[in-house]
Amino acid sequence: MHFSTSEIIEVLGTISFAISGTFAAMQKRLDPFGVLIIAFVTSIGGGTVRDLLLGDTPVAWMRDVNYCLLILLTSLATIYFKTHIKKFKVTLFVFDSMGLGLFTMLGLQKGIVFGLEPGMCVALGTITGCFGGIIRDTLLNQIPLVFRKEIYATVCILGGILYFILVYFNLKADLAKVIVIAFIFGMRVVVVRYKLSLPASYFRS
Amino acid sequence: MHFSTSEIIEVLGTISFAISGTFAAMQKRLDPFGVLIIAFVTSIGGGTVRDLLLGDTPVAWMRDVNYCLLILLTSLATIYFKTHIKKFKVTLFVFDSMGLGLFTMLGLQKGIVFGLEPGMCVALGTITGCFGGIIRDTLLNQIPLVFRKEIYATVCILGGILYFILVYFNLKADLAKVIVIAFIFGMRVVVVRYKLSLPASYFRS
Amino acid sequence: MHFSTSEIIEVLGTISFAISGTFAAMQKRLDPFGVLIIAFVTSIGGGTVRDLLLGDTPVAWMRDVNYCLLILLTSLATIYFKTHIKKFKVTLFVFDSMGLGLFTMLGLQKGIVFGLEPGMCVALGTITGCFGGIIRDTLLNQIPLVFRKEIYATVCILGGILYFILVYFNLKADLAKVIVIAFIFGMRVVVVRYKLSLPASYFRS
Repeated sequence: MHFSTSEIIEVLGTISFAISGTFAAMQKRLDPFGVLIIAFVTSIGGGTVRDLLLGDTPVAWMRDVNYCLLILLTSLATIYFKTHIKKFKVTLFVFDSMGLGLFTMLGLQKGIVFGLEPGMCVALGTITGCFGGIIRDTLLNQIPLVFRKEIYATVCILGGILYFILVYFNLKADLAKVIVIAFIFGMRVVVVRYKLSLPASYFRS
Repeated sequence: MHFSTSEIIEVLGTISFAISGTFAAMQKRLDPFGVLIIAFVTSIGGGTVRDLLLGDTPVAWMRDVNYCLLILLTSLATIYFKTHIKKFKVTLFVFDSMGLGLFTMLGLQKGIVFGLEPGMCVALGTITGCFGGIIRDTLLNQIPLVFRKEIYATVCILGGILYFILVYFNLKADLAKVIVIAFIFGMRVVVVRYKLSLPASYFRS
Repeated sequence: MHFSTSEIIEVLGTISFAISGTFAAMQKRLDPFGVLIIAFVTSIGGGTVRDLLLGDTPVAWMRDVNYCLLILLTSLATIYFKTHIKKFKVTLFVFDSMGLGLFTMLGLQKGIVFGLEPGMCVALGTITGCFGGIIRDTLLNQIPLVFRKEIYATVCILGGILYFILVYFNLKADLAKVIVIAFIFGMRVVVVRYKLSLPASYFRS
């Protein structure tokens, strides 16, 4: 049994977003079923929007029951271990950032497979990375993280551009992928740690 | 002129959700057009999401103008007779529950036709049943019924599982469908009557 | 280099909604990136929903990078010139109304190309016209303009019906298109100027 880089990325991304969804839903005190639904939607949201836009249907998670099982188990494990986790906010942030990096890479890659232009691949990666979180936050009735003041989607776009630069300089694709994922995750940490934000005050009217 | 079980289910579900949408929108005092839009969206929302996920496009309601006419007439009739209806809340609940049962069965069935695995068929049924209401509530700017404390989507899933159990024991498909629809409707009544809910307090952090 | 009427309509509609999205987002003081995203989503939202419903994928904007560049440049120019614009509300209204007329016509036309019935073409036009604004307002966490008290979607439907009447009386299609676009824009101005609304009070329960 051998896994490709893409499959490993997909599994890790699915797990990360399932955990982030579970935490976000628990913070809002949803019932267990609501928590599972939010975990599920967070985890498959980005890929579903991506597949719908590409017309690659039935969408990915419908074709492979394993991803659904993976989300279910991850969410249940997260609920079970929640008493051991003190810092909800930090945990939510870490897994959201990991999922962001992993899914952005995945979407970008699928854009390349479908023969889209590089700019569109970056857009598709950003959508794949961000939409799970957008749907999660919309359903939990809060302004999506992506629209709040810290830099969020920008990081995905920069990561996407970085990928094409790395590949342009003949870096091995697999290595470039790992670098991009680490870059997106690291940038998010830096952004939140130093409270970096784009100057919204600029728009004051 | 002969109707299949599926067609009868679809017509009844469409009517049920059109009524539930009309009531929800009237409660929020939308203008007549807003009411019609909400009725329409509630009624076709679940099936549209289902068809998009499956890639069965153009989506169902675009291919058959009759469903649109049915929704229009149902909504107008509901508006017209509203003075005779005292208990808005109860009426909304009854028709929402009927639509839930009917559309869950319909989605499950379409999953089978598309050759999805049983687990996916149950998921597709749940989505078909719940999404009309989710879109309705989101547009009306309230937390979707499905995420509030009472058991909602769980009922669809149990109904879906029940269907496969009944068919496994060689029950006639048409009879199994009727039983599942009645089960989902009945369960909703029991759940709301006795205020059953999954223990959200469990997640208090 | 020659442009068809449709292409001109599409370019103008894209610009109009990009401006309206930029203004709406600046009013909410989003960061520059949030502003660009809202501009983008407002501009491509209607067409994306239209293409998804028709199953015409990958959706339009993914196939032509020029529209993305057009939106980007329009949004940046709008941000740059914002100091020269005093009346945010009026500007937002004007461009939203222009986009509404242009995109309604575009959606209607695509429905005809796909061989839908006239009623469905009108619905598709209305969806194409309204959805960019609905997504914009939903993401900005306000009740969509289309559901507020003034007449909005009704105008698109009337415009759509007008188109088929004009064509029925053998008017040249291109002229009919221009008339319909002007009709929708003009109606919106009249509606807002004289505060026309459908009688929501009728539904008081």
